[in-house]
Amino acid sequence: MKNILILNGPNLNLLGMREPGVYGTDSYDQICELIAQHAEAQGLNVDFYQSNSEGGIIDRLHQCVGSVDGVILNAGAYTHTSYSLRDAISAIGLPVIEVHMSNIHAREEFRHKSVISAVCRGQIAGFGVSSYLLGVDALLALE
Amino acid sequence: MKNILILNGPNLNLLGMREPGVYGTDSYDQICELIAQHAEAQGLNVDFYQSNSEGGIIDRLHQCVGSVDGVILNAGAYTHTSYSLRDAISAIGLPVIEVHMSNIHAREEFRHKSVISAVCRGQIAGFGVSSYLLGVDALLALE
Amino acid sequence: MKNILILNGPNLNLLGMREPGVYGTDSYDQICELIAQHAEAQGLNVDFYQSNSEGGIIDRLHQCVGSVDGVILNAGAYTHTSYSLRDAISAIGLPVIEVHMSNIHAREEFRHKSVISAVCRGQIAGFGVSSYLLGVDALLALE
Amino acid sequence: MKNILILNGPNLNLLGMREPGVYGTDSYDQICELIAQHAEAQGLNVDFYQSNSEGGIIDRLHQCVGSVDGVILNAGAYTHTSYSLRDAISAIGLPVIEVHMSNIHAREEFRHKSVISAVCRGQIAGFGVSSYLLGVDALLALE
Amino acid sequence: MKNILILNGPNLNLLGMREPGVYGTDSYDQICELIAQHAEAQGLNVDFYQSNSEGGIIDRLHQCVGSVDGVILNAGAYTHTSYSLRDAISAIGLPVIEVHMSNIHAREEFRHKSVISAVCRGQIAGFGVSSYLLGVDALLALE
Amino acid sequence: MKNILILNGPNLNLLGMREPGVYGTDSYDQICELIAQHAEAQGLNVDFYQSNSEGGIIDRLHQCVGSVDGVILNAGAYTHTSYSLRDAISAIGLPVIEVHMSNIHAREEFRHKSVISAVCRGQIAGFGVSSYLLGVDALLALE
Amino acid sequence: MKNILILNGPNLNLLGMREPGVYGTDSYDQICELIAQHAEAQGLNVDFYQSNSEGGIIDRLHQCVGSVDGVILNAGAYTHTSYSLRDAISAIGLPVIEVHMSNIHAREEFRHKSVISAVCRGQIAGFGVSSYLLGVDALLALE
Amino acid sequence: MKNILILNGPNLNLLGMREPGVYGTDSYDQICELIAQHAEAQGLNVDFYQSNSEGGIIDRLHQCVGSVDGVILNAGAYTHTSYSLRDAISAIGLPVIEVHMSNIHAREEFRHKSVISAVCRGQIAGFGVSSYLLGVDALLALE
Amino acid sequence: MKNILILNGPNLNLLGMREPGVYGTDSYDQICELIAQHAEAQGLNVDFYQSNSEGGIIDRLHQCVGSVDGVILNAGAYTHTSYSLRDAISAIGLPVIEVHMSNIHAREEFRHKSVISAVCRGQIAGFGVSSYLLGVDALLALE
Amino acid sequence: MKNILILNGPNLNLLGMREPGVYGTDSYDQICELIAQHAEAQGLNVDFYQSNSEGGIIDRLHQCVGSVDGVILNAGAYTHTSYSLRDAISAIGLPVIEVHMSNIHAREEFRHKSVISAVCRGQIAGFGVSSYLLGVDALLALE
Amino acid sequence: MKNILILNGPNLNLLGMREPGVYGTDSYDQICELIAQHAEAQGLNVDFYQSNSEGGIIDRLHQCVGSVDGVILNAGAYTHTSYSLRDAISAIGLPVIEVHMSNIHAREEFRHKSVISAVCRGQIAGFGVSSYLLGVDALLALE
Amino acid sequence: MKNILILNGPNLNLLGMREPGVYGTDSYDQICELIAQHAEAQGLNVDFYQSNSEGGIIDRLHQCVGSVDGVILNAGAYTHTSYSLRDAISAIGLPVIEVHMSNIHAREEFRHKSVISAVCRGQIAGFGVSSYLLGVDALLALE
Repeated sequence: MKNILILNGPNLNLLGMREPGVYGTDSYDQICELIAQHAEAQGLNVDFYQSNSEGGIIDRLHQCVGSVDGVILNAGAYTHTSYSLRDAISAIGLPVIEVHMSNIHAREEFRHKSVISAVCRGQIAGFGVSSYLLGVDALLALE
Repeated sequence: MKNILILNGPNLNLLGMREPGVYGTDSYDQICELIAQHAEAQGLNVDFYQSNSEGGIIDRLHQCVGSVDGVILNAGAYTHTSYSLRDAISAIGLPVIEVHMSNIHAREEFRHKSVISAVCRGQIAGFGVSSYLLGVDALLALE
Repeated sequence: MKNILILNGPNLNLLGMREPGVYGTDSYDQICELIAQHAEAQGLNVDFYQSNSEGGIIDRLHQCVGSVDGVILNAGAYTHTSYSLRDAISAIGLPVIEVHMSNIHAREEFRHKSVISAVCRGQIAGFGVSSYLLGVDALLALE
Repeated sequence: MKNILILNGPNLNLLGMREPGVYGTDSYDQICELIAQHAEAQGLNVDFYQSNSEGGIIDRLHQCVGSVDGVILNAGAYTHTSYSLRDAISAIGLPVIEVHMSNIHAREEFRHKSVISAVCRGQIAGFGVSSYLLGVDALLALE
Repeated sequence: MKNILILNGPNLNLLGMREPGVYGTDSYDQICELIAQHAEAQGLNVDFYQSNSEGGIIDRLHQCVGSVDGVILNAGAYTHTSYSLRDAISAIGLPVIEVHMSNIHAREEFRHKSVISAVCRGQIAGFGVSSYLLGVDALLALE
Repeated sequence: MKNILILNGPNLNLLGMREPGVYGTDSYDQICELIAQHAEAQGLNVDFYQSNSEGGIIDRLHQCVGSVDGVILNAGAYTHTSYSLRDAISAIGLPVIEVHMSNIHAREEFRHKSVISAVCRGQIAGFGVSSYLLGVDALLALE
Repeated sequence: MKNILILNGPNLNLLGMREPGVYGTDSYDQICELIAQHAEAQGLNVDFYQSNSEGGIIDRLHQCVGSVDGVILNAGAYTHTSYSLRDAISAIGLPVIEVHMSNIHAREEFRHKSVISAVCRGQIAGFGVSSYLLGVDALLALE
Repeated sequence: MKNILILNGPNLNLLGMREPGVYGTDSYDQICELIAQHAEAQGLNVDFYQSNSEGGIIDRLHQCVGSVDGVILNAGAYTHTSYSLRDAISAIGLPVIEVHMSNIHAREEFRHKSVISAVCRGQIAGFGVSSYLLGVDALLALE
Repeated sequence: MKNILILNGPNLNLLGMREPGVYGTDSYDQICELIAQHAEAQGLNVDFYQSNSEGGIIDRLHQCVGSVDGVILNAGAYTHTSYSLRDAISAIGLPVIEVHMSNIHAREEFRHKSVISAVCRGQIAGFGVSSYLLGVDALLALE
Repeated sequence: MKNILILNGPNLNLLGMREPGVYGTDSYDQICELIAQHAEAQGLNVDFYQSNSEGGIIDRLHQCVGSVDGVILNAGAYTHTSYSLRDAISAIGLPVIEVHMSNIHAREEFRHKSVISAVCRGQIAGFGVSSYLLGVDALLALE
Repeated sequence: MKNILILNGPNLNLLGMREPGVYGTDSYDQICELIAQHAEAQGLNVDFYQSNSEGGIIDRLHQCVGSVDGVILNAGAYTHTSYSLRDAISAIGLPVIEVHMSNIHAREEFRHKSVISAVCRGQIAGFGVSSYLLGVDALLALE
Repeated sequence: MKNILILNGPNLNLLGMREPGVYGTDSYDQICELIAQHAEAQGLNVDFYQSNSEGGIIDRLHQCVGSVDGVILNAGAYTHTSYSLRDAISAIGLPVIEVHMSNIHAREEFRHKSVISAVCRGQIAGFGVSSYLLGVDALLALE
């Protein structure tokens, strides 16, 4: 595992501003910085991408083929509805780990079901920014 | 309340052409004109945005922070499926009023449920272009 | 449109006393006064009726034939269960607009479904007493 | 069988005026007249009662004990929701026959289920005013 | 109305022997005799057919075109599952009346729903052999 | 706790006559007498009200404000459907205890769910007339 | 118990050819031979019947009255849908034992529910041809 | 691919007469003629079979083994309920293509689900008689 | 019919690489080439568009008005969730044929339901690249 | 009634410590003391048992046969899932009264359904420690 | 097959005493004696274990590895809920046959579904003590 | 965080032997060893407990109060059904992290829902033994 992508879905660009009781007060950039430090300390090249568009996220996943070895994906609310995203994960054949900052299983009913879990390697939910850091470690542990 | 946005979702650019029995024969531009007159008569600055893209609508909502005081949102069919849009409305912390030209509760079963209602201030449905005008009045009445 | 009826269902006589966090602190009489002023300012004759009885509400709707031109109906909790009320609305052939002071779509699950919406002209929900005022305007806009 | 009651529920007083495509153009009084002729021709005393109130219908059923030998009941839309009516039918211990002018099984989904059928002797639906006449004959055939 | 068919479905040939508490003790032949007398007294030609085979019942319905003016159908348990029978009733364009000896709405859950009701003229259930006789009268009343 | 109301819903006036296997042979008046003795022995003023009308029960609950300290409510079959009754209980802000003579959880499926439980203090079901007496004791124990 | 019938439903005539991984490689005739030997060794007269027609199976069950003492029934896929077959089993009043070669509870969801179980004496599933042999023994054990 | 069977289920013998708005005005024989011309032009031997009986259709499928190379199946309403037909298709191991003249997905809810699709090679629906012709071409394209 | 559009949704650009067991080994470009040859041989002008974005597909559909006579649409996983796409198909008033390379009815449960079928002319599923070719022929057959 | 058992299920040993907002601050031992005083004052011998194990509770119920005359059972969360407990209550043939300190009908959805109610004499819920005391009185009232 | 275990779940120790109409009057020990005779007559060593504890049953299953060749399991009401038991059966890799004395498919709805069937070899239900004896024979027939 | 407990539920003692394709070939003891090394390297005292008994797991959780600072819980199949376990986690007020070796969201439907997630801090699933190690790190990150 050499190159990894941290892929964030809708509204995660508003981190820090959005429902701080749920998501904490760190901004999206601060969180990226924390993840980068953690990943680079383990010798990884790390790239970041965020989009509010379902198609944009799928496009970015497609581009991973041949250039990225593993993906940490927080798909935001597309987690619960996007079968297209699920198909994209299946199609690219790379290890993808699903992460969530909040404990989605403890929130509204509609957040309990992830339609992408079945094609991800595993799920980590509920630990704030640590969910991403644990996700990086989990990617490494796959080797 | 000073600046408001009239935000329209998928297929509303085809108004006038699309199922006139349901949506009337006024074009999207004509409807915008009517809304603008109504809003400006009450001293409001009004802006318009329409997109067929879920991500585009979310992006525009994000941009409202700091520049818009209230939003009239006709999310078209994303009304019934877009939890990402719902999260965006929650995240920006501005008053959003959900409007529909048709009476969605009297149409197909899948149109009866709105996944964004719970985070909007209120819902106005069934009055054609008047739904938008009533929405503007409702925004003002929030003050 | 000349004569309109403001028809209120169960427990709305307790307005001001009942769950003020949800319904505000204005009494039923104060709210009627506000509606009357708004309607009369637009040249309408306005009548009011409130009943806790499903049959009473239906009887009153029947009496509208020939004497009333439009109805603003807040059916309270009968909204969610009364198919008899629905049949009455269909039977009288007059325009009926469904209003709710609270945003019923943001409350308990059982309040999300209205069994009368399909036979009303439209729905306005979530704006407190303004829901009635907007309803009056919506009735006029039907002409 | 000597004395029978023809008991009609909500909105049936509007017969002739209400959705004539479904219910025909005879008024409630004309229909009562036809039923009376049919019943009296077979030597029955026949009484009529109509109410839009669930409680009113239940009260009338209670009064049947000791004075009425059988009931023809068109419960209107209470057919689909009133467990209280169901309990009343059970409680009085008299034969009750459920009739409907329209074929309720061919209309909206919510009209397909009757919560009172299980405690009635039988159901006749779909024959307009003839449903009542057949109901009278069915009562007689119970003997 | 001149020629009618009394069409019986599965297991009705066992009448008299099958669950007498539910269906009475008259045999299938005795019941046919009673129906014949009743129909002929009103100047009708009446034919009878019974089959345990879904296809057999459909074949017989097809043969009605051009020779039969109305059908009394007790489809037995095919009532609850046979969309093919439903299509056959639609296809022949003749008035069909659905009858049941028992009150199907008061028995097991699976007997509460009829998939053929929506294409029949009406339903009569719960009056034993009288259900057929009332069905004949209902056919005549359609004229 | 000084003044209490024993409030009974539909069909409870027929106690003693109605399904004695389920409800026993004591009449409504005899049961009221037993409750009165029990309540008065504990120094309470007790009032009784019974109605078959949903609106009547709601009206009576409204009248409790200012004159009654606690309510024992057997809502009969309205227990399972009346959200209007539920709203009334919430609105008056008095302690209401839900009682049932029969064990509703051991009867038909539709009796298993109470829509008013969530706004009552507690539920007592299955002890015949003792359910009321235990309800009185429970009201006192709330203090 | 003297005379028994081994009654097989749709597609069981293809045994040996049909999905051998599920049903084994013995042909229908070979399986009948094994059953015959097993039954005759215990002094039973055994008859066999197979049909792909729902009506044909019902007809054969009807003929059992008076000539057969017990039935081993593998209804194939009619097991999951045929309420007509269920009624036939009830009607004839003979002991019927439901057998399946495969473990229907371990296959597709639609095979988990048998609509005939409730009127059979018992069910044996999952033992290949031994299911029939155990069924014969179970019939004998009923005595 | 040499020999193919065009297999039609219930009520398709009434084509031309049955709901012409849905199925067109060509008779069953005319449609067979069109299919025969199309198939023979491509060097195929084509046979036809229609039955209203579920068992009859299954029997005919069984006979295909060894004599037919592919089947075009319009199972009519058995499409939605016949697991026995599904098992027959699985059992014979031949390519079967499911066709429908109408767009079943745009009609009543019960027509949206096909229980045989999962064991057919593919589905073609909505093109009238062309559905059969496209089905023949699709069979050839399988080679 | 002169000008047609072959419109492909999410992940179909990965054809050949994505799950070859399901979708075959031909690349998206190779498949377009095959379709172009087939369409041009019949005198059609054919255009191609693929997008992973729901909004992008809707935009392209809107552009068809006035320039395209028919559309072959493989909406990928948006097939199962996009009511916005459904509205777009309704709005443009052009014939759209839904195609799928795989037999969606034989795959995961969530792929069994298409929310766009009801507004398409027909559906062709399960024939690999031939699904597109048959779709072109079906478009021509509409004339 | 001489000897009674107070039987408590999982987590009730933590009373006082566990969610005091729901269950109060009295410890399990303090509550047992209050119950003992109340029961002994009425001449009863009272025994107590608490277990977190489903099997342990069932074992204790079995031991009641011959030594205990009635049981007050608070089954904790096993209330909602344990059909084994339900069978045990049926098997021992002793009167069992179901009690809950909290109003289970006003809490999470999964607590609304009790699988043991149908085999208990009655249910008392919502009165804190008084639920037990009322349960003792209810047991005595059974005599 | 040399050594087998007869494993019984909750409440089966009460056999003879528990609902004799359903389970017969033989005691648990008498039934074990009958099974032992039957098994030993076929050269098997047979062991017995009964527990009311889910964990106890799982522990005993684990101990079978290396010492038992096959298991007859009557899991009582854990049949319907215990996924832990299901996992234990999968984990030990031994043939397990599910037996029930009563016909669980003819009893309460909750007894119709077995969550362990899918990992057992087969199911035998409805033959009283003979279910166990047939289970022993079925185990031997697996060889 | 000083003292942590690794708590394992049913069948996890069989690790290495149980479905190695799903759970790997390391034994329970080997896995405990790996966890211990990982935890101790971070200065934690770690204790282990495994039980197949729901009550046993609950008992052990109760004992954590006052002696343990955090819990890593793999509840096995009790994850999906044990509301008692859920209550225990709530009651003790300690941070509990839910871990699963397999990706439960990619397995059988019944494993997709966890009834304990809502009261745990977070969930980690799908990483084999690493799920435990990441769980330990997640506990530390809570500080």
